[in-house]
Amino acid sequence: MNVFVSRWIVAVCLVAAGAAARAEDPLPSWADGAARAAILDFVDRVTDENGPDFVPPDDRIAAFDNDGTLWCEQPIYVQAAFAFDRAREMAAKDPSLAGRATFRAILARDRQAMSRLTEPEIVELVAATHAGMTPEAFVGFARDWLSTAEHPRFHRLYTRCVYQPQLELLELLRTNEFRTFIVTGGGVDFVRAFARPTYGVPPERVIGSSAKTRFEVVGDNARLVKLPELNSVDDKEGKPININLHVGQRPILAFGNSDGDLAMLQHAAAGDAPSLMLLLHHDDAEREYAYDRDSPIGRLDKAWDEAKRRGWTIVGMKRDWKSIFPENPR
Amino acid sequence: MNVFVSRWIVAVCLVAAGAAARAEDPLPSWADGAARAAILDFVDRVTDENGPDFVPPDDRIAAFDNDGTLWCEQPIYVQAAFAFDRAREMAAKDPSLAGRATFRAILARDRQAMSRLTEPEIVELVAATHAGMTPEAFVGFARDWLSTAEHPRFHRLYTRCVYQPQLELLELLRTNEFRTFIVTGGGVDFVRAFARPTYGVPPERVIGSSAKTRFEVVGDNARLVKLPELNSVDDKEGKPININLHVGQRPILAFGNSDGDLAMLQHAAAGDAPSLMLLLHHDDAEREYAYDRDSPIGRLDKAWDEAKRRGWTIVGMKRDWKSIFPENPR
Repeated sequence: MNVFVSRWIVAVCLVAAGAAARAEDPLPSWADGAARAAILDFVDRVTDENGPDFVPPDDRIAAFDNDGTLWCEQPIYVQAAFAFDRAREMAAKDPSLAGRATFRAILARDRQAMSRLTEPEIVELVAATHAGMTPEAFVGFARDWLSTAEHPRFHRLYTRCVYQPQLELLELLRTNEFRTFIVTGGGVDFVRAFARPTYGVPPERVIGSSAKTRFEVVGDNARLVKLPELNSVDDKEGKPININLHVGQRPILAFGNSDGDLAMLQHAAAGDAPSLMLLLHHDDAEREYAYDRDSPIGRLDKAWDEAKRRGWTIVGMKRDWKSIFPENPR
Repeated sequence: MNVFVSRWIVAVCLVAAGAAARAEDPLPSWADGAARAAILDFVDRVTDENGPDFVPPDDRIAAFDNDGTLWCEQPIYVQAAFAFDRAREMAAKDPSLAGRATFRAILARDRQAMSRLTEPEIVELVAATHAGMTPEAFVGFARDWLSTAEHPRFHRLYTRCVYQPQLELLELLRTNEFRTFIVTGGGVDFVRAFARPTYGVPPERVIGSSAKTRFEVVGDNARLVKLPELNSVDDKEGKPININLHVGQRPILAFGNSDGDLAMLQHAAAGDAPSLMLLLHHDDAEREYAYDRDSPIGRLDKAWDEAKRRGWTIVGMKRDWKSIFPENPR
C-alpha cells in the first residue's frame, strides 16, 4: 500500500464518517427556530461543492468570543475571580501585600471598595497576579485554580459554566472542516490554560489580550518571563487586528455577545465569501442572566442595533437554547 | 453507523495509512549520515507510545525559520527583491517617486547606492511598498510577483528555490502528527502569501515580522489597512517571544540557519520534553551558496559555536542533502 492509496482510504473513511455524523442531529441543545435554521443552512451552503456559496475548507475560519459567548461572564469575569483569589493567596503568604489598599479590599471581600479600585490599582493587581513568572508557571496557577473554583450561583466548576449549545456548534463546525478560533478580550494565557479540554480548541487557536514577555538566558537555561506591561488589548477593533495578525484570513463566521465583538462581526461581514454573524442575547434570568444595553459587563447596545439593521442572527438564550450548561457540573 | 463508530473507523484508517507511509523512505533527498539518523531517531522516539521519550501529539510543535532554512536567501532576501521590483513598478506610475534618492537608486539598479541606503530610507521603501493598503491587496501584489519572479542565478521561480529535503521533512513531521510552524524574520503577510501551496503550511501557522494595522469602518464596509509602523520584529529573541504569543506551546523541534535563530533553538532546548535542534550550514557553493561567520545575510557565528558545544544537529548542505531544489523549476 503506497502513500497515495493510504491517503485515499483515509479520505473515503472521512467522507463516510462525515455522512454518518450528518445523519444525527448535530445540535441537540438548539431549539427549532430561526437561529438554528440559519446555522444549519449556512453550514450546508458553504460545504456544498456544487452550490454557489461553496467555501473551500482552507477558508472556513470561525471566530468565537469567549466571555459571555462560550461561557458565563456574570456576576464577574471568571478571570477577575481568578485574580482576586490569587491576590488573596499571595497576600496570605506576604504580609507586606496585605497592607496595600488593593489587596486589603480584596482580602476583606469588600465589594464597595473593590468596585472603587482605580485603573492604576487594577493594573497593580493584574501585574502582581499575572506577571513576573514564566507563561508555564502562570498556566499552572490557572489550571490549579480552575480545577476547583466554582461559580457562586451555579455551584459548578467555571469550566462547566460553558454553554452546551456552543460546544455542539464548535463540534459541528469542525466536523465540517472549519477551523475554530477563540478571540477573547481575556488574557490569552488564561484562556489557553483550559481551551483544549473544555472547547477542543488548541492553544494556537486562542487569540487574546496579552502582556509583553522578556526572553532570558542564564547558562543553558532559556525562559520567557511575563512582564507587567501590556502588549495587546484584544477587544473592539483589537479583535479584527489580532485575527489578521494571528490567522491571516478573514473569518466567515463570527459569534459574539457584546459591543466588544462588533468590530469582529463587521470584519467577518465585509469579506467576499458568504458569512454568518451571530450575536448571543442573554435574556434568560432564570437559567442564566438577563442583561444587554446597560450592563457594565457584556454591554450589548451598538452591536444589537447593527445586528437588527443588517439582519445578523440574534440567538436568544431563552428561546433558542434547550439547555444552557453541560449535564455534568464537574 | 453512529459518530463513535465512524470515528473509530477513521482512527483505524489513519493508523493503517501511517504504517504504510512509514514503510517507504520518507526522506529520499537526505543522504545517509548523522543528520538524517538524528531526525529519524527523534521522530521514532517521540512517537513511540511505549518509550520513555513519548510526546503526545498535542505537544508535537515544530518551528522552522524560512530565509536560508526553507528557501534560498542569497544573493538578497527574496522579500527585498520583491520590494525593489515593487518600488520600480510604483515609480514607473508615479514620477514624483522617481525623484527620491531611494527610488532613484533602485530604478538605476545601482547596487552601490542601494547598499548605502540609510535606515530611514529603507523604512521609507518598506512603507511605500508594504503599507497603505489592505492585507488582502498586499497578498495580491506578492502573489502576482511570486508567480513570475525568478532567482537571478538558478532561473527558477523563487517559490521553487525551496529546499526539497525540507519539504520532505515538513511532510514527515506532519505525517507523525507534528504541527509545523514557520517562524520567519520576514514579513508575515509576505510569507503567508505562498506558504500553503509551497510548504503545506496554512497562514495561521506562519509567524513573522509585522506592521501595525488600523481597522476602518466606512458605511457597512470594514477593512484593515497596513500602516508604515512596526508591530514586531520576529528575529533573535523576538522568535521565542512570538512563538509564545502565537502558539502558546514550546516547540520540541526547531530548525534554523543563522544567529537570528539562536534564541528559538535555545527556547526549544530548554523545554521539559525531548527536543531536537537543527542548524543548516550553507557549505555548498556549487549547488547553492557557501557562507557562515562573516556573511551579511544569514550570519552563522554564535549559533554555530553553541550548536557545536551543545551537540545540536548541524546539517551540512553538501554532505547531507542529495538534492537541493525540487525537480520542477516552475
